[in-house]
Amino acid sequence: MTRILGIDPGSQRTGIGLIDVDATGKYSFVHCQMLNLLVDTEDFPARLGKLVFDLEEVLEQWRPTVVAIETVFMEKSAMSALKLGHARGAAIATVVRRGLSVSEYAPRVVKQSLVGSGAADKIQVQHMVKLLLSLGERKLQADAADALAVALTHAHMSATTGRTGLATALLRRRR
Amino acid sequence: MTRILGIDPGSQRTGIGLIDVDATGKYSFVHCQMLNLLVDTEDFPARLGKLVFDLEEVLEQWRPTVVAIETVFMEKSAMSALKLGHARGAAIATVVRRGLSVSEYAPRVVKQSLVGSGAADKIQVQHMVKLLLSLGERKLQADAADALAVALTHAHMSATTGRTGLATALLRRRR
Repeated sequence: MTRILGIDPGSQRTGIGLIDVDATGKYSFVHCQMLNLLVDTEDFPARLGKLVFDLEEVLEQWRPTVVAIETVFMEKSAMSALKLGHARGAAIATVVRRGLSVSEYAPRVVKQSLVGSGAADKIQVQHMVKLLLSLGERKLQADAADALAVALTHAHMSATTGRTGLATALLRRRR
Repeated sequence: MTRILGIDPGSQRTGIGLIDVDATGKYSFVHCQMLNLLVDTEDFPARLGKLVFDLEEVLEQWRPTVVAIETVFMEKSAMSALKLGHARGAAIATVVRRGLSVSEYAPRVVKQSLVGSGAADKIQVQHMVKLLLSLGERKLQADAADALAVALTHAHMSATTGRTGLATALLRRRR
């Protein structure tokens, strides 16, 4: 059994989604939620701190075995790229330090994997997330749906490639 | 006694510098080094992982009581801003999760604090770092000198303002 944590990081909120994949490749929904980083402060380090604490709670409670995260669709503004980079870097640092491997997938790969077209829109992706995970009419927050989408992409891709995380290899070498 | 860790983060290497400040405000050089993130892999999560492990070793060995870091001088390219953001976010996440408060200083504040002019160049800043810390003819790597410069700035600023880190306050509230 593999438990995949998908992360959709942002500087204001971060979506997380967990799915289980059994030995036959069958997957099932476990949990999803949104981590709200808009703490009661303008202090950006404190906001990143909240992301770390919340994400560690998720790791502790749900015990994923592997992590998948979207690569960044290039931002137009350097300022928003910088902020997003901070959140993404803090999230990756938090999971890597627990020895979890991180696989990155480009947005078009996620769309291709779920909908069959790299140009699919968000509505189509969310529709497929619900369908594949048998979520019926359940309401999904957009960030949580995106996190489940990248987790599903990892399930599809690792079924075909058996990719191993280099971050884990690095960790093993250093311990 | 306060031990200040200054950090100058980058996506390829990160400078760190430590100084001690006693109750009278007198400071002394403790240690500086460069963390090289160019691990033997193209895997960016692994590179951030190396930053986390190396920085945790520094925290464990040198036990700083507070952390100072430069805010980012705005990057021209969104891509380089994104990469720098990842490294900076991972570094901040690593120190905040250990309960250390992080103070941020704009580059012009660091220059003003050390040289007396926000428009000072790198050579002048490095010269003042050596002078203030009595480092004589010792060779300083540029990243390590910048890290010491932001640590010195924090020593100067906290002597006048007694600033408390919000990140620490947040951590205390949650524990």
